[in-house]
Amino acid sequence: MIMLKERILKEGHVKAGNILKVDSFLNHQIDVGFFDEIGREFSRIFAGDGVNKILTLEASGIGIAVITALHFNRCPVIFAKKTQSKNLDGELYLAQVTSFTRGMTYDIQVAKKYIRPEDRVLIVDDFLATGSALLGLVEIVRQSEGTLAGCGIVIEKGFQNGGKMIRDQGIRVESLAVIKSMSEDSLVFED
Amino acid sequence: MIMLKERILKEGHVKAGNILKVDSFLNHQIDVGFFDEIGREFSRIFAGDGVNKILTLEASGIGIAVITALHFNRCPVIFAKKTQSKNLDGELYLAQVTSFTRGMTYDIQVAKKYIRPEDRVLIVDDFLATGSALLGLVEIVRQSEGTLAGCGIVIEKGFQNGGKMIRDQGIRVESLAVIKSMSEDSLVFED
Repeated sequence: MIMLKERILKEGHVKAGNILKVDSFLNHQIDVGFFDEIGREFSRIFAGDGVNKILTLEASGIGIAVITALHFNRCPVIFAKKTQSKNLDGELYLAQVTSFTRGMTYDIQVAKKYIRPEDRVLIVDDFLATGSALLGLVEIVRQSEGTLAGCGIVIEKGFQNGGKMIRDQGIRVESLAVIKSMSEDSLVFED
Repeated sequence: MIMLKERILKEGHVKAGNILKVDSFLNHQIDVGFFDEIGREFSRIFAGDGVNKILTLEASGIGIAVITALHFNRCPVIFAKKTQSKNLDGELYLAQVTSFTRGMTYDIQVAKKYIRPEDRVLIVDDFLATGSALLGLVEIVRQSEGTLAGCGIVIEKGFQNGGKMIRDQGIRVESLAVIKSMSEDSLVFED
């Protein structure tokens, strides 16, 4: 997605530890009109897959997921929760995730009643790097026995192994921008 | 907002400890079409206030904020972060919040560059109960020296003192449904 790559080149900052800061439009301040273009692109890519639920992980996936859902006939969004909340009870799907940016491992959870075997689920998230968060969401869809249509990612760090690992399982992963290499001085996308 | 009150009566569950579970449409599964109606209602209430930024708190405020922004000329959304993240640096506004549902106190933070003195900010959130989260967001707008247009809340627990405390400071708080009392057997709205 050319406009995304241009935006990353213009506003992104690479920091030590393989951190790409894009908080001017993606994960602190949100450019809502730009998200609408991202949602439109996901709907083009996954058109005809019968998606009727969108699954993401709190927090920064939620904005992308909700606007993307507007382009999938306003289907429901479910966001997996990272912490035990008094607001969740009943039967839960659980998976374990290790956060790259926060340096910690935690459970993510989804109430079973919101993803059922008859559902066709699109997973969306803002970043794909080591793949731990995405694998956790995939695991939740597996537990539900629903159909995973695929994964729509905004920015993939192609130099980390998450994307390869998940695609090697036969799962469709579509990333709107894949970074081949980055440093404080340069950022190169895959074609 | 009548359709919201009907939805709460139909799908909400009151649990011990003043917990209202509305995870079928508001804060776990998201009914995107319904959120669009909520955003439209906020835009009607705060029309003419010159809102050019929407501020919320991760995680469950993000969906509401992003869809509401579509009704305010697609203005930017900023979501305050709850935890120290490697993705935030530079100058920050900081405020302290005590979570009702999670039973803990934490800092929330917003990068200073995203809210400036010339901004007119609408705060939105899903719940208002003790008011701690909302006060934290108000404090951040105060630090920015921007103008606070007001606060748009989806569900206010009117039997807790947060709404009164904040309105007593002269701040406009508009809640789409205000609960007067609730128990496992009954739920009554204010008029």
